[in-house]
Amino acid sequence: MNISIIGSGNVAWHLAKALKASGNRILQITGRNELAVCQLASEVEATPNFALRQVNTESDVILLCVKDDAIEAIAGLLPFTNSIVAHSSGFRSKEVLATCSSQPGIFYPLQTMKKDVPLSFATVPFLIEGNTEATTEKLTLLARQISSSVHCVSELQRQYIHVAAVFANNFTNHMFELAENILSSQHISLDILRPLIAQSAENIQHNSPSKLQTGPAVRKDFFTIEEHLKLLSAEAEMTKIYSIVTESIFKNHQ
Amino acid sequence: MNISIIGSGNVAWHLAKALKASGNRILQITGRNELAVCQLASEVEATPNFALRQVNTESDVILLCVKDDAIEAIAGLLPFTNSIVAHSSGFRSKEVLATCSSQPGIFYPLQTMKKDVPLSFATVPFLIEGNTEATTEKLTLLARQISSSVHCVSELQRQYIHVAAVFANNFTNHMFELAENILSSQHISLDILRPLIAQSAENIQHNSPSKLQTGPAVRKDFFTIEEHLKLLSAEAEMTKIYSIVTESIFKNHQ
Repeated sequence: MNISIIGSGNVAWHLAKALKASGNRILQITGRNELAVCQLASEVEATPNFALRQVNTESDVILLCVKDDAIEAIAGLLPFTNSIVAHSSGFRSKEVLATCSSQPGIFYPLQTMKKDVPLSFATVPFLIEGNTEATTEKLTLLARQISSSVHCVSELQRQYIHVAAVFANNFTNHMFELAENILSSQHISLDILRPLIAQSAENIQHNSPSKLQTGPAVRKDFFTIEEHLKLLSAEAEMTKIYSIVTESIFKNHQ
Repeated sequence: MNISIIGSGNVAWHLAKALKASGNRILQITGRNELAVCQLASEVEATPNFALRQVNTESDVILLCVKDDAIEAIAGLLPFTNSIVAHSSGFRSKEVLATCSSQPGIFYPLQTMKKDVPLSFATVPFLIEGNTEATTEKLTLLARQISSSVHCVSELQRQYIHVAAVFANNFTNHMFELAENILSSQHISLDILRPLIAQSAENIQHNSPSKLQTGPAVRKDFFTIEEHLKLLSAEAEMTKIYSIVTESIFKNHQ
């Protein structure tokens, strides 16, 4: 397929390279960041472009890989096209693209991406939506070129998956951050916990988290819980999180 | 060394086998669960024992690998010995062993363990304490036989590491559990998030969590946060956790 991409950040970077590698033509990379646009365009042999009104409307698919907050505004500035225009957001509706395309859709790779961290899409789940069956089918076909895990979902399902991903990814990362804060107050590196973190993540690949829970909350070890709260007593925010998550573990393991 | 172990659960199981494999003699396995004691004793060519007053006090080291809550009571029932008696708890004091040994200590492997999940101790951090330098040194030597990551720490350091581990392991596991609850309400399997969980855990091995945070909270995407809270509104407990963790991410990324 002939694909144009709007955006030059982490998602645009990885998608453009993977779609090119699987045999598609990347016609154009559009963005504001001149250096990033030129770098990515050169990597995938595309034309760099800096004006939304000059986006190539002859592309089979135009992928909008920009921050969630910018999607609606950018869609409002694009020339109308009968090509598919799909965004890569986990939460925003495809309806915000109806102003610029007769075939709006969603092309959402459920993975965390950084330009400088190599990534294989082979097992990355893609959540696909289209306004018609034909749109959905074309986006599904495109995703299947780079991943074996392609899912046609409703908007509501995608939104629930997105909020679940916030718990499983952003909130767990924050727990790691709080752990690092506790350790650094004692001049200890997070390295001491990295083997535990790796093993737990490995275990979760093959088990339900409800079967894996350990620690003072699930075994109702109130002595340790009280002592932990004493250690954290100078940190109001950590105390609050400790108490509420501990209570929630109680409730889930009655 | 000649080692006796009290306990036949997950920690006793893995420690006994690893210490035996590195060339020590396991003299005795003591416990109440007849089947588990006999199985483990047979695995490591030790004598099974079911009476605390018959624990082999001639051992170089007696390891108490039992639930935190049981340590003090068991120590009170052991015959007094001049051998080292060390427990494997991340939080309890070595002082609770002073009733049964002139050489109380801590031998704490910082890892999650299940009998049926194979485990290599090679990189598992061991936190060591002893009441004297000689005790500490002997326990350090023992840990070094099976791990390259052995740390002599104070009681307070170990306790801070333990509460940090609760955030990094038990609380992250609970976030996975909440994510699974959200998904199963929509008849979706946690499988859809497993590649994301694996990638995030891989990233944390090489980066600080503060550098890795993504999602609506860190980018102050209030629209998505409000919409997420609407999706969760029927779940009071999840709503509370979502709000408090989101606030905490705001504070940590000002």
